[in-house]
Amino acid sequence: MQIPAEDLETRKGSARAWFEALQGQLIAAFEALEDAGPAGSAEAPAAAGRFARKPWLRTDHSGAPGGGGTMAMLHGRVFEKAGIHASTVHGTFAPEFAKSMPGAAEDPRFWASGISLIAHPWNPNVPAVHMNTRFVVTSRAWFGGGADLTPVLDRRRTQDDPDSLAFHAALRAACEAHAGVADYPKLKAWCDTYFHLPHRNEPRGIGGIFYDYLSDAWDEDFAFTRAVGEAFLGVYPEIVRGDVGRPYGEAERHEQLVRRGRYVEFNLLHDRGTIFGLKTGGNVESILSSLPPKVIWP
Amino acid sequence: MQIPAEDLETRKGSARAWFEALQGQLIAAFEALEDAGPAGSAEAPAAAGRFARKPWLRTDHSGAPGGGGTMAMLHGRVFEKAGIHASTVHGTFAPEFAKSMPGAAEDPRFWASGISLIAHPWNPNVPAVHMNTRFVVTSRAWFGGGADLTPVLDRRRTQDDPDSLAFHAALRAACEAHAGVADYPKLKAWCDTYFHLPHRNEPRGIGGIFYDYLSDAWDEDFAFTRAVGEAFLGVYPEIVRGDVGRPYGEAERHEQLVRRGRYVEFNLLHDRGTIFGLKTGGNVESILSSLPPKVIWP
Repeated sequence: MQIPAEDLETRKGSARAWFEALQGQLIAAFEALEDAGPAGSAEAPAAAGRFARKPWLRTDHSGAPGGGGTMAMLHGRVFEKAGIHASTVHGTFAPEFAKSMPGAAEDPRFWASGISLIAHPWNPNVPAVHMNTRFVVTSRAWFGGGADLTPVLDRRRTQDDPDSLAFHAALRAACEAHAGVADYPKLKAWCDTYFHLPHRNEPRGIGGIFYDYLSDAWDEDFAFTRAVGEAFLGVYPEIVRGDVGRPYGEAERHEQLVRRGRYVEFNLLHDRGTIFGLKTGGNVESILSSLPPKVIWP
Repeated sequence: MQIPAEDLETRKGSARAWFEALQGQLIAAFEALEDAGPAGSAEAPAAAGRFARKPWLRTDHSGAPGGGGTMAMLHGRVFEKAGIHASTVHGTFAPEFAKSMPGAAEDPRFWASGISLIAHPWNPNVPAVHMNTRFVVTSRAWFGGGADLTPVLDRRRTQDDPDSLAFHAALRAACEAHAGVADYPKLKAWCDTYFHLPHRNEPRGIGGIFYDYLSDAWDEDFAFTRAVGEAFLGVYPEIVRGDVGRPYGEAERHEQLVRRGRYVEFNLLHDRGTIFGLKTGGNVESILSSLPPKVIWP
């Protein structure tokens, strides 16, 4: 389907405005969690943390200006490390990548806007989490993204843990409210398939949803993408509030640090976004800000 | 060059015997360093560490027995984590890998024996190190390997640091004693090219040597490979003895833990052996034993 150019510009602007607004809302929600506390570790700072915002500019592989974004990083007392980044970039795909991107073989130009969030809490009872949504325009245009939860303690990394149930329920509701474009069982299964460590034959966490190349009906696709962000904004802070006061000991901290190693293995060995970003000259600081603050491989 | 089958069996036996003997010598040298001490950190155990040997058996992708090896891991007071592994494996390459291995397109059967060593010391003044040599047989047969040093403090990760000079001198001497098969400038440059992090445009360490597909003259190739092992055995323990008593503070420990993150990034994003091993169903515990014990991504 050919989109009239002026409609496309409006859509790009709307998508970008949403991702930037969501970044602001999520930052506020995470800072409220920092205010509420308590500190998740004796190693953590005593005071509530605040995000540090850092703008960055992208240079396209051609050498031309290529957009940029705002990284926002938090090193707090509830979150040992959290990043909430929004970016809007454009340029041309290098020939070796053009073939793997829909619509780029015809015309290598692209535009993309999105938000990504990664959080590694101090308290091992609080699950780590990842959320990302984006709107990508080549000679085609589509939404993609998802959210997945990684409880770091074996005894809580189960499908019947209350956190897992709440997280799945929120994403299911977002899908069911947009059932015309979002088939929940399919997106849930896609997440499980994607966030899998083949070398260990282990899932990364308890799942969530994953979608890509969504280009059924723009208004509905965009509404669903907003619903994913809103579902995340509703459920994850609630999960944190429920877990953040739970006591834990050295053994659980150790288990958390080991489990974070799996997160690193997944992101560096398998994550498409990480590998694609690093190979296409993305912002290394932003791409690798997903890596956990402290990790052990015993 | 076609090698008579009985000669080839003798060669395989000789190479394997060397790698296993070298493993024993290196274990003894590292345990002597543990005995000499001192403990490299207040977090380290007080007593001298000993390697724990663990045999493992490999199952070929076809399901048949595929050899195995002996992992030897040390968690000591000088070395926070060190692994010295010898293995001898055989089987058939899966079709997708056969094309990338010399001689495997004609016949997918392979045999390989080798040793690999990785050491992550406690004291940030002591460089981390990697050494690996191997003999691989397909319808062709070749030696490969190398050694490289990774000082973890910026002020010592220079080409004119005494450790760098000593390490390079030892490997240069090994090459020059076998100049007929080992061109030192070429092998040194190969190492620099290989141990490079393109996404950060950084070298991993200060270099060393790297070689592969060495099949010039078997006796000389094998003698050179032994010389690399002996050079390493001579120089690295000497470097450790010179550095292990140097004082350091929190800032240096922090710098070490950050630098170790680069080591993880290299091994999971770029190291051919790691990625090849994980994708061909190698021993995950052994392959990932190279990862540092504790890492931070601030």
